[in-house]
Amino acid sequence: MKKILVLNGPNLNLLGVREKSIYGDQDFVSFFSELKDEFPDVDLSYFQANSEGAIIDEIHRVGFEWDGVVLNAGAYTHTSVAIADAIAAVTTPVIEVHISNVHQREEFRHHSYLSAQCKGVILGFGLNSYRLGILSLMLS
Amino acid sequence: MKKILVLNGPNLNLLGVREKSIYGDQDFVSFFSELKDEFPDVDLSYFQANSEGAIIDEIHRVGFEWDGVVLNAGAYTHTSVAIADAIAAVTTPVIEVHISNVHQREEFRHHSYLSAQCKGVILGFGLNSYRLGILSLMLS
Amino acid sequence: MKKILVLNGPNLNLLGVREKSIYGDQDFVSFFSELKDEFPDVDLSYFQANSEGAIIDEIHRVGFEWDGVVLNAGAYTHTSVAIADAIAAVTTPVIEVHISNVHQREEFRHHSYLSAQCKGVILGFGLNSYRLGILSLMLS
Amino acid sequence: MKKILVLNGPNLNLLGVREKSIYGDQDFVSFFSELKDEFPDVDLSYFQANSEGAIIDEIHRVGFEWDGVVLNAGAYTHTSVAIADAIAAVTTPVIEVHISNVHQREEFRHHSYLSAQCKGVILGFGLNSYRLGILSLMLS
Amino acid sequence: MKKILVLNGPNLNLLGVREKSIYGDQDFVSFFSELKDEFPDVDLSYFQANSEGAIIDEIHRVGFEWDGVVLNAGAYTHTSVAIADAIAAVTTPVIEVHISNVHQREEFRHHSYLSAQCKGVILGFGLNSYRLGILSLMLS
Amino acid sequence: MKKILVLNGPNLNLLGVREKSIYGDQDFVSFFSELKDEFPDVDLSYFQANSEGAIIDEIHRVGFEWDGVVLNAGAYTHTSVAIADAIAAVTTPVIEVHISNVHQREEFRHHSYLSAQCKGVILGFGLNSYRLGILSLMLS
Amino acid sequence: MKKILVLNGPNLNLLGVREKSIYGDQDFVSFFSELKDEFPDVDLSYFQANSEGAIIDEIHRVGFEWDGVVLNAGAYTHTSVAIADAIAAVTTPVIEVHISNVHQREEFRHHSYLSAQCKGVILGFGLNSYRLGILSLMLS
Amino acid sequence: MKKILVLNGPNLNLLGVREKSIYGDQDFVSFFSELKDEFPDVDLSYFQANSEGAIIDEIHRVGFEWDGVVLNAGAYTHTSVAIADAIAAVTTPVIEVHISNVHQREEFRHHSYLSAQCKGVILGFGLNSYRLGILSLMLS
Amino acid sequence: MKKILVLNGPNLNLLGVREKSIYGDQDFVSFFSELKDEFPDVDLSYFQANSEGAIIDEIHRVGFEWDGVVLNAGAYTHTSVAIADAIAAVTTPVIEVHISNVHQREEFRHHSYLSAQCKGVILGFGLNSYRLGILSLMLS
Amino acid sequence: MKKILVLNGPNLNLLGVREKSIYGDQDFVSFFSELKDEFPDVDLSYFQANSEGAIIDEIHRVGFEWDGVVLNAGAYTHTSVAIADAIAAVTTPVIEVHISNVHQREEFRHHSYLSAQCKGVILGFGLNSYRLGILSLMLS
Amino acid sequence: MKKILVLNGPNLNLLGVREKSIYGDQDFVSFFSELKDEFPDVDLSYFQANSEGAIIDEIHRVGFEWDGVVLNAGAYTHTSVAIADAIAAVTTPVIEVHISNVHQREEFRHHSYLSAQCKGVILGFGLNSYRLGILSLMLS
Amino acid sequence: MKKILVLNGPNLNLLGVREKSIYGDQDFVSFFSELKDEFPDVDLSYFQANSEGAIIDEIHRVGFEWDGVVLNAGAYTHTSVAIADAIAAVTTPVIEVHISNVHQREEFRHHSYLSAQCKGVILGFGLNSYRLGILSLMLS
Repeated sequence: MKKILVLNGPNLNLLGVREKSIYGDQDFVSFFSELKDEFPDVDLSYFQANSEGAIIDEIHRVGFEWDGVVLNAGAYTHTSVAIADAIAAVTTPVIEVHISNVHQREEFRHHSYLSAQCKGVILGFGLNSYRLGILSLMLS
Repeated sequence: MKKILVLNGPNLNLLGVREKSIYGDQDFVSFFSELKDEFPDVDLSYFQANSEGAIIDEIHRVGFEWDGVVLNAGAYTHTSVAIADAIAAVTTPVIEVHISNVHQREEFRHHSYLSAQCKGVILGFGLNSYRLGILSLMLS
Repeated sequence: MKKILVLNGPNLNLLGVREKSIYGDQDFVSFFSELKDEFPDVDLSYFQANSEGAIIDEIHRVGFEWDGVVLNAGAYTHTSVAIADAIAAVTTPVIEVHISNVHQREEFRHHSYLSAQCKGVILGFGLNSYRLGILSLMLS
Repeated sequence: MKKILVLNGPNLNLLGVREKSIYGDQDFVSFFSELKDEFPDVDLSYFQANSEGAIIDEIHRVGFEWDGVVLNAGAYTHTSVAIADAIAAVTTPVIEVHISNVHQREEFRHHSYLSAQCKGVILGFGLNSYRLGILSLMLS
Repeated sequence: MKKILVLNGPNLNLLGVREKSIYGDQDFVSFFSELKDEFPDVDLSYFQANSEGAIIDEIHRVGFEWDGVVLNAGAYTHTSVAIADAIAAVTTPVIEVHISNVHQREEFRHHSYLSAQCKGVILGFGLNSYRLGILSLMLS
Repeated sequence: MKKILVLNGPNLNLLGVREKSIYGDQDFVSFFSELKDEFPDVDLSYFQANSEGAIIDEIHRVGFEWDGVVLNAGAYTHTSVAIADAIAAVTTPVIEVHISNVHQREEFRHHSYLSAQCKGVILGFGLNSYRLGILSLMLS
Repeated sequence: MKKILVLNGPNLNLLGVREKSIYGDQDFVSFFSELKDEFPDVDLSYFQANSEGAIIDEIHRVGFEWDGVVLNAGAYTHTSVAIADAIAAVTTPVIEVHISNVHQREEFRHHSYLSAQCKGVILGFGLNSYRLGILSLMLS
Repeated sequence: MKKILVLNGPNLNLLGVREKSIYGDQDFVSFFSELKDEFPDVDLSYFQANSEGAIIDEIHRVGFEWDGVVLNAGAYTHTSVAIADAIAAVTTPVIEVHISNVHQREEFRHHSYLSAQCKGVILGFGLNSYRLGILSLMLS
Repeated sequence: MKKILVLNGPNLNLLGVREKSIYGDQDFVSFFSELKDEFPDVDLSYFQANSEGAIIDEIHRVGFEWDGVVLNAGAYTHTSVAIADAIAAVTTPVIEVHISNVHQREEFRHHSYLSAQCKGVILGFGLNSYRLGILSLMLS
Repeated sequence: MKKILVLNGPNLNLLGVREKSIYGDQDFVSFFSELKDEFPDVDLSYFQANSEGAIIDEIHRVGFEWDGVVLNAGAYTHTSVAIADAIAAVTTPVIEVHISNVHQREEFRHHSYLSAQCKGVILGFGLNSYRLGILSLMLS
Repeated sequence: MKKILVLNGPNLNLLGVREKSIYGDQDFVSFFSELKDEFPDVDLSYFQANSEGAIIDEIHRVGFEWDGVVLNAGAYTHTSVAIADAIAAVTTPVIEVHISNVHQREEFRHHSYLSAQCKGVILGFGLNSYRLGILSLMLS
Repeated sequence: MKKILVLNGPNLNLLGVREKSIYGDQDFVSFFSELKDEFPDVDLSYFQANSEGAIIDEIHRVGFEWDGVVLNAGAYTHTSVAIADAIAAVTTPVIEVHISNVHQREEFRHHSYLSAQCKGVILGFGLNSYRLGILSLMLS
């Protein structure tokens, strides 16, 4: 059974509360519970942090033994070389996902430090981006 | 039954022949045949062109009635405002896919004129990017 | 009697169908028929293509004998050095027109490769931009 | 009868004196007299100033009651956010015109702060640019 | 006997007609006939197209068996990632040539997407650039 | 009793008339009358000009004897080195204020030539920006 | 009674110790005690952190119920999209303040990711920037 | 006897009052009186304005009959295309002078819109820059 | 006896595990033990954190009493103004070191926010960079 | 008999020693001897210098009487305006050659100050670039 | 008697030979002889070199005892930080002069590394620029 | 016994004379004599040149047999691709050193063409940078 971490970055704890026109109105905990039901053959875990350092720690923790990370690094996507280095340093494949189509938003959201270090990128499908991220890890 | 077009841009007719270290060694026609078998409940079609105008014509042809387009526009991704306008002009959702992780390649491949007009973007998963593109249209 | 070509580029065949908030809801064929009625003393022709090469071919065809071209090159305005070179190569005056005020749209639509090679530029007047383009050729 | 202001910016008082290879050799006062004759059904006025503030004052004066302004802001086109704000602040439509094809001149003349606030832009037709500007206001 | 394709891009069909101060007054067909006479030991062919897609098709057609391509891609030199990808995809060596010294012309003509994918570049020698291109393929 | 000048730049004479969604619907003269009532212990004066030169003259006039200037230079904020030099040249402290949050508007409004020469900057509080500007001068 | 948080970012715990020529020599704890005395009708709290994540957590904690945040995010002002997103995600108004006039310092301090998400900005008044920040929340 | 205008732009009326460490402590009127004594064989006049428009008017007034203008346009040097156009439009030679060495000051003072239109440039010699400007007109 | 802190930033806890081709295969703890043996006359301590805030806290803790910090801030080198401010705020000299020659890596690693605030920079010598960092503090 | 100088710039004396994967393993002196044998009807000379000044001196020495210069300026290609000026100043045609395809190397090697002043450019053909350079001078 | 060096950089030995439309047709040696006659009370010397290093050596030789250097560094003006450092290192005042108005030439000639280190700059007056340079040293 | 060259570039012959606030007041010859005493087990030589070509020659002379070069290229650090190429061409390791912390000086001194070709970089330690450079060569 594959062990996969869903890893969320800053402000994603407010999902369903914050800016619903962009992110929708479902909170992530209830969504994650749906995900676990949909993928009974995957050992899915969830971690969220607002701190860049805590995200790096978590990538280090799972990054050599687990089968995959589905990472929505939120705003750190656009500013964190340190998370990009963490992804490059581990051996577990990391999939970059975004809920919104970042290319329809501010210019500074069009660049990701993480993409070049991730195995692949999936963005713009709402919460389905996470589903597709998990599926991508099951296909390979 | 959903009608979905897989639409490939320039040079993708050489898949399996060209630069195998980047694109793998399977030719697209045999891969498309696999795809049709894997998705028996989808009405899948395939079109490839090296001409920007022909790609626009094809988007116009299917873009108001079909259920989705999985588009790998190849190099036109980075240079064609005209294809981006075609995507914006039609009502069928278009999913941008890439075989390689374009963010690991030349700087000019990091920018896509198409992304902001597409529903979502999937890249870096090899030929699985097409599979995930079709799945994304079935989820929604 | 002056021979004038109205030449439309990519996606303008969708006029009246596509993005009506930007381009209005009249299709170009019926508009062109109005134009012919309004200018009985001009020999007006119409050509549209989604292909950059076809537009260049057409400019070559009329560019040494006809009296003017009213050109809305659509998205190729912003990306095509080849069409700009075609305009520079012929002797017939070419007038650049746009339906919308491109300066109120995305940054990349503010630059035109064609303007420096055209005799003049008219933009932002809706379909009246074509009328003014024809008038400009009759004034000179 | 429509009230239209022809509004000229800095150095255009030297027309017919200054740089004739670019601007031609007719002075603007005699040209304006021709214009009035050509458009007997329009209430045409003329104002010229070398001062940015005076141009703003004039736009304010006519900008809520008159039917249109044909504005050649000269060099202020490229540097004046204040005139652009004045155009945005009034309700009378303003048409930006230029005698020369500014895209064939220095790089800094390719950008206009005014275009995005004007209804439309007409450039490159010599003094005919003013004629077309007036016609554009009569068409709408 | 080596098979070499001379491949010309957009507007080069107007050679001898268009902008003679830059390109000279000989038309390419008569020049190509001279070339064939000068190189009796080479199997020389000629193809010209104004369409980016047609140029890609032609590169694909000859690119795995022939001995060389002498390519003057005209304006596509500066805008076409797709042609650059086609050159990278084939195994036949491609030589980039230009009639004029592009570095004495507009800034945007100083950058070539093709150069990095070609074997070598020859520019500025008038029609002799083609002669030198053929010679370069005979030397190697 | 402190002497303070409230100094408004171009187009601010249209306050309450122009673009109410950005600037509100109170005209400045009635607002200034409120301000005088609210600050009975300050000798408040008001000056507005659309001309860059007139604003510089006014800064010179009060800039060596008065106790403060609350300056909303409008569009000149983003283009006028001359006003910035005037502020640097006088000894009276100048406070830069803006009604709207300029950082939520066009890119070119994010840069101010004046800020580095002013004592402080207050922006985004509607007409309260003026109140806070006066308060800032009373605190010091 | 309004509940207002004064929130300080990295290195501001060194106030009164660090670079006194820029920031003055009063430590923030004694200053905050003065503030509480000056505003007896406001429920003022104080929080400082050197960690980006901790600042985001604090904004989330107070951001839906309290009446305002006076935020000096220090260096994170110029680098943190994540804090900007946190401000955008909450409903409590956030006022950006700076002790020094950041526009008189290094180029990279002239840009703030936060300003566009804050209600207003106040900078350059020394510790009075905090006083004006609180006043701005009491005016509205 | 040559007629030469010494023409000063914004803030130079404060010379001797303003920023003495940069500009010295002599006021311009007394300096101009010295100049007249030193050049008894030149018909020297002096004009100063803070308004861009007034400077343009003055250049027009003298620009076709006088023998030279020694112009210190102050801050307008760096922002005024309109003054540059005025210089280009007249036939009298204009010499650009600066008191300080502008290349030792802020980056934006290193660029002059005027230099390319002036006959020559002299900067960094304090008030002697004016002396050298007059001498340059006597040499030619 | 001098007190010196060796301070490592994000991902350096993976040394000897991560990307050995760049960083070598010795883990830092065993290397630090070697360092202590080599410098018996220095009171050496070691701290590592993946969190920007924790690094700032540590700089504050030692920054006023200790004799030096040898800092390898890893990826924060290129993104953290906050750590740069912390270095500027303390009085203990900080030496910036890097294991690899960052100038042979990605463009974004060529810029360091820290260098201008550090006493000196040493990079490219593998783990010897730390030895040289300690030596530099003993020389001064 | 034509007199032609082969002129090599810095580090080309190390050819055959230095970076053989880029430049090959033949030293230039033996290659030049081959060249002389191949072109018995040309009066070929060779000069190499590591000094920019010496290269300029040599261009001056031959630049008014000889029939051509085949110049590989090495790294000075990308940095020397002075050599470009020397080429522009003489009347002998200069051909720019490079052994490697500089467009496949670092970004800063893609720009040449010399190209615009040379008659033509030949690059990427290994030592054959010199042969083609000589041939180009014999064709004209 | 003041000792002044006239110091010329690369290609200026060709004056009167090279590009006469830009530089005129007098050679510098005969001009320098005129200069010596015109300034009998100045001890004038002349040095020219095409080598950057030789120019630096010469600045060092005279830079601590002589009364002034009139320097036309030619193309090194735009590329040489080393000459700028030499000027900054010596105590003799250096005046930067240019024969042509460099601001009317290529963009890269608009920037001078030297200007900020020189006492003043004089350009555009033909050979009179040298006369004015000597005069500027006599005025101070 | 290791043979190491200390190689100084332009203006460093003025050390102890020039700009003492940046470089200190010891001349390099006396410092080098100290260095030789401090490193009796190293065969140390010293060379200085103001000419780029002479520095390249010296790197070539020692670059295949000696054990190391400690190079302070002065201003050529920021402008010389040719010296960078020389370092890349030789096999002896080269260490880049600077006396001052170049990152605290002008922007253009923050970029070094040499760093990517050198083994390591040491800067900011005054003359101790040379000591550390020699030590770095002894450690490896």
